[in-house]
Amino acid sequence: MRVATALDVHAFADEPRPLMLACLEFAPTGGLAGHSDADVAAHAAADALLIASGIGELGTVFGTDRPEWAGASGSALLGEAVRLVREDGWQIANISIQIIGQKPRFAPRRLEAQEAMSAIVGAPVLIAATTTDGLGALGRIEGIGALATALLTD
Amino acid sequence: MRVATALDVHAFADEPRPLMLACLEFAPTGGLAGHSDADVAAHAAADALLIASGIGELGTVFGTDRPEWAGASGSALLGEAVRLVREDGWQIANISIQIIGQKPRFAPRRLEAQEAMSAIVGAPVLIAATTTDGLGALGRIEGIGALATALLTD
Amino acid sequence: MRVATALDVHAFADEPRPLMLACLEFAPTGGLAGHSDADVAAHAAADALLIASGIGELGTVFGTDRPEWAGASGSALLGEAVRLVREDGWQIANISIQIIGQKPRFAPRRLEAQEAMSAIVGAPVLIAATTTDGLGALGRIEGIGALATALLTD
Repeated sequence: MRVATALDVHAFADEPRPLMLACLEFAPTGGLAGHSDADVAAHAAADALLIASGIGELGTVFGTDRPEWAGASGSALLGEAVRLVREDGWQIANISIQIIGQKPRFAPRRLEAQEAMSAIVGAPVLIAATTTDGLGALGRIEGIGALATALLTD
Repeated sequence: MRVATALDVHAFADEPRPLMLACLEFAPTGGLAGHSDADVAAHAAADALLIASGIGELGTVFGTDRPEWAGASGSALLGEAVRLVREDGWQIANISIQIIGQKPRFAPRRLEAQEAMSAIVGAPVLIAATTTDGLGALGRIEGIGALATALLTD
Repeated sequence: MRVATALDVHAFADEPRPLMLACLEFAPTGGLAGHSDADVAAHAAADALLIASGIGELGTVFGTDRPEWAGASGSALLGEAVRLVREDGWQIANISIQIIGQKPRFAPRRLEAQEAMSAIVGAPVLIAATTTDGLGALGRIEGIGALATALLTD
């Protein structure tokens, strides 16, 4: 068995772009900055899978090594990470994701997000959200973080 | 098997209230703000259990869904999370909790806290503490955080 | 089985000292502050092992309890944590470490660091790096953090 934990943080974008989170569009504006769609939940989950399996890490696997993936959606990155991990002989027991930030309000779409991400992963993806009680950069709504832990079996 | 990681952060309260941490009272004043007793260690542990089991998350299970729990103590919330998780058919292998903050000094009561929380959970709850070396909001003693990871078996 | 997650954060030192990270010297200057070599990756990994096993936590095991270890290198602390955990009857399934900070650029030495730390631990140590997208104290390059998760079997 193998476990890995990964954090991802993106700052809110200055220009209007969709807010993508946990493979759902939360709003047509108010999105996070990044070359990709900046879906911190999908990125943290994909990173945890790549780290746990020993395949690598998000920035390397989808950056330097495979530049064609640099601008892909969080859903696409997560799907490809799942494919790589399975191809390497691992089974995914589960992934937990906790979204950390003051907004958007995540609870109303939590089950929808769990279903969307579990369908991509083919295993239980359990998603929660919390705030930092107004503290720090995430408390000042400068960005959103996501903390993911993945458990694999061979 | 299932794993989940959860962070909880509370700001220090402006008014005098007890500092509750890891199901112990650390001081009669200097407490954290919140409708509940703001025990970040108990909250993070309960959240990790609820997430790993797929039952939900702390804010939903004890907030919107069951408002009668909104002001409960950390001990009571943790005990109820354990009951829900067991009722759902899960065994708790262990929970780890790391308290993150500059104060209070946790080490002198670490073993006492482990015993108190392990008794509530009925499985090993392993607790540690660290600082952020003075960095960020937690380093400026604006609040305390706790990072919990739970491992479940069915 | 047992799991634990641990964070370690150190501030950059004012005086010139080597930057030690993941049991490698990254630069002869630009290091982190601390009585030890301030290797956050090695410290987080050692802490996760000590917490998961129930032996204790980094600050207690190598501080108050055994002051002779207070100034030891990250490699030495990690090696001793591994020895203690094995002596206590545990097998190490794996450790994941994610380094969090804007610099140094970690990717070019990632595999070298994994080999160095896996050799010390005698089990897979999987290492990744990320940034906070410029947010917070770590985004302002005030310090470096590391988040480690350890999985043990008996």
